[in-house]
Amino acid sequence: MAAHYVAVIGAGSDVAPALLAEAEEVGAALARRGAIVVCGGLGGVMAAACRGADAEGGLTLGILPGDDRSAANAWVTVAVATGLGELRNGLVVRSAEAVIAVAGEYGTLSEIALALKAGKRVVGLGSWKIPGVVAAGSAQEAVTLALGTRD
Amino acid sequence: MAAHYVAVIGAGSDVAPALLAEAEEVGAALARRGAIVVCGGLGGVMAAACRGADAEGGLTLGILPGDDRSAANAWVTVAVATGLGELRNGLVVRSAEAVIAVAGEYGTLSEIALALKAGKRVVGLGSWKIPGVVAAGSAQEAVTLALGTRD
Amino acid sequence: MAAHYVAVIGAGSDVAPALLAEAEEVGAALARRGAIVVCGGLGGVMAAACRGADAEGGLTLGILPGDDRSAANAWVTVAVATGLGELRNGLVVRSAEAVIAVAGEYGTLSEIALALKAGKRVVGLGSWKIPGVVAAGSAQEAVTLALGTRD
Amino acid sequence: MAAHYVAVIGAGSDVAPALLAEAEEVGAALARRGAIVVCGGLGGVMAAACRGADAEGGLTLGILPGDDRSAANAWVTVAVATGLGELRNGLVVRSAEAVIAVAGEYGTLSEIALALKAGKRVVGLGSWKIPGVVAAGSAQEAVTLALGTRD
Repeated sequence: MAAHYVAVIGAGSDVAPALLAEAEEVGAALARRGAIVVCGGLGGVMAAACRGADAEGGLTLGILPGDDRSAANAWVTVAVATGLGELRNGLVVRSAEAVIAVAGEYGTLSEIALALKAGKRVVGLGSWKIPGVVAAGSAQEAVTLALGTRD
Repeated sequence: MAAHYVAVIGAGSDVAPALLAEAEEVGAALARRGAIVVCGGLGGVMAAACRGADAEGGLTLGILPGDDRSAANAWVTVAVATGLGELRNGLVVRSAEAVIAVAGEYGTLSEIALALKAGKRVVGLGSWKIPGVVAAGSAQEAVTLALGTRD
Repeated sequence: MAAHYVAVIGAGSDVAPALLAEAEEVGAALARRGAIVVCGGLGGVMAAACRGADAEGGLTLGILPGDDRSAANAWVTVAVATGLGELRNGLVVRSAEAVIAVAGEYGTLSEIALALKAGKRVVGLGSWKIPGVVAAGSAQEAVTLALGTRD
Repeated sequence: MAAHYVAVIGAGSDVAPALLAEAEEVGAALARRGAIVVCGGLGGVMAAACRGADAEGGLTLGILPGDDRSAANAWVTVAVATGLGELRNGLVVRSAEAVIAVAGEYGTLSEIALALKAGKRVVGLGSWKIPGVVAAGSAQEAVTLALGTRD
């Protein structure tokens, strides 16, 4: 079992190409560190992070809102079809020890809030400015802030 | 079955007396309108809102994070011991058609975000300033904003 | 807050009239004992139990599978629209200290199993014969078995 | 993403060695068919099935009741720390297209019932005799019954 699980959260659609590239690099950097990428399993930032991790041979966990596993993006290694709707956001947060938010809207905000409530490290890349969120200037910095110097 | 369910959310402890008084008046005003007060069932803002509703003969629904019903505050009419932890925040939001946030911290923020994501009306009384939250200047105004002119 | 919460579980449709009458009497007897009737909020056995409780001035809690509160039967005092699908069965069980099963199919069986797993008293009226389920011969006996001599 | 997800369910402790050997062979046979083994992530039958799958290079998904990932058995590839308690049983069932029950107690029975309710194939190896459960005489037969002739 991998040592670290980090959630990468953000919007599922209408994401600017530059942000998608950031999310993909976040996923890749996490995989290179041996971390499992946890996400909501759908498109946009989630798919980009999974694609990045997959390209580096990493594992990805997609925790889907619906009960149909086929909704998962193509780079999800293991999918959980929860059927919980937005309540699955809480499972994304619980399954991870740190969270990296790439931009994002209300769903992302709910995950940021739940992670901060649980005392988990939350790193933001162009995301909600909420007290407690640590801002990163690049994908690499985000991953370093999320994982620290742990192996 | 009551026509309207409105969630009153906010911190469970360390709440300033003036805010507790607001929360109590919100609960009372909701009860006078015939609405059921939905909350997380614990102390602070939740207890104040329930106390206000109870004093007006209203019904209150407490959706608890733990699996022990006895944790509910004394003014909860019907308690649901979910054992879901903070994921119960999502059920508080789902059970209500509108949300009134009185101050609040990260848990409250997660509920605000989930309610906005679901397209529900969110009214804030000295709470988080998030785009989409409608600010109210008093308990009465908060209830009017939450329920509108509906009966 | 009422002292006792008892779940009444069973099929939501295609229930024989004699079983519906039993469920209604179970609800009525629980209400006369001051207990809150917890159920899945829909039709069949659930509606009959709520109707019985309501006729005696009791309170009923309907924990719905969908996220639309209007699906609750007309005798639900307070409804929780969970949007959890069949996972809400676990909340029905958690919210109650004892369970009375009136006939029922697979959904009911899942609730019986979860209640037994949690060490709760499960009383059956013409329901699944599972080791640990206490069989009752009448609605009155079922309620006495569920609540014991507690007030 | 693997084509098939099959849940292997059963008791987490006090399991007879012969049943553990069956569970391990079920996991191994599933992995050889390319299926992901879904389970509750803990010991007993769950650990045995994961061990078998892992030995064949298969992937395993452990959906834990608690919120501490370190409770997962050593052969879980990806763990979800749900914090939902026994409600996570419903997620085990939802995540799989078929279920193989090896012996098991009340928790297993709740999963069998939820799977049958959802119309999923349930295969039993020395497990609960519930109408709808298809009995298998060996691990190989159980896997064939669960997956059919699908690739």
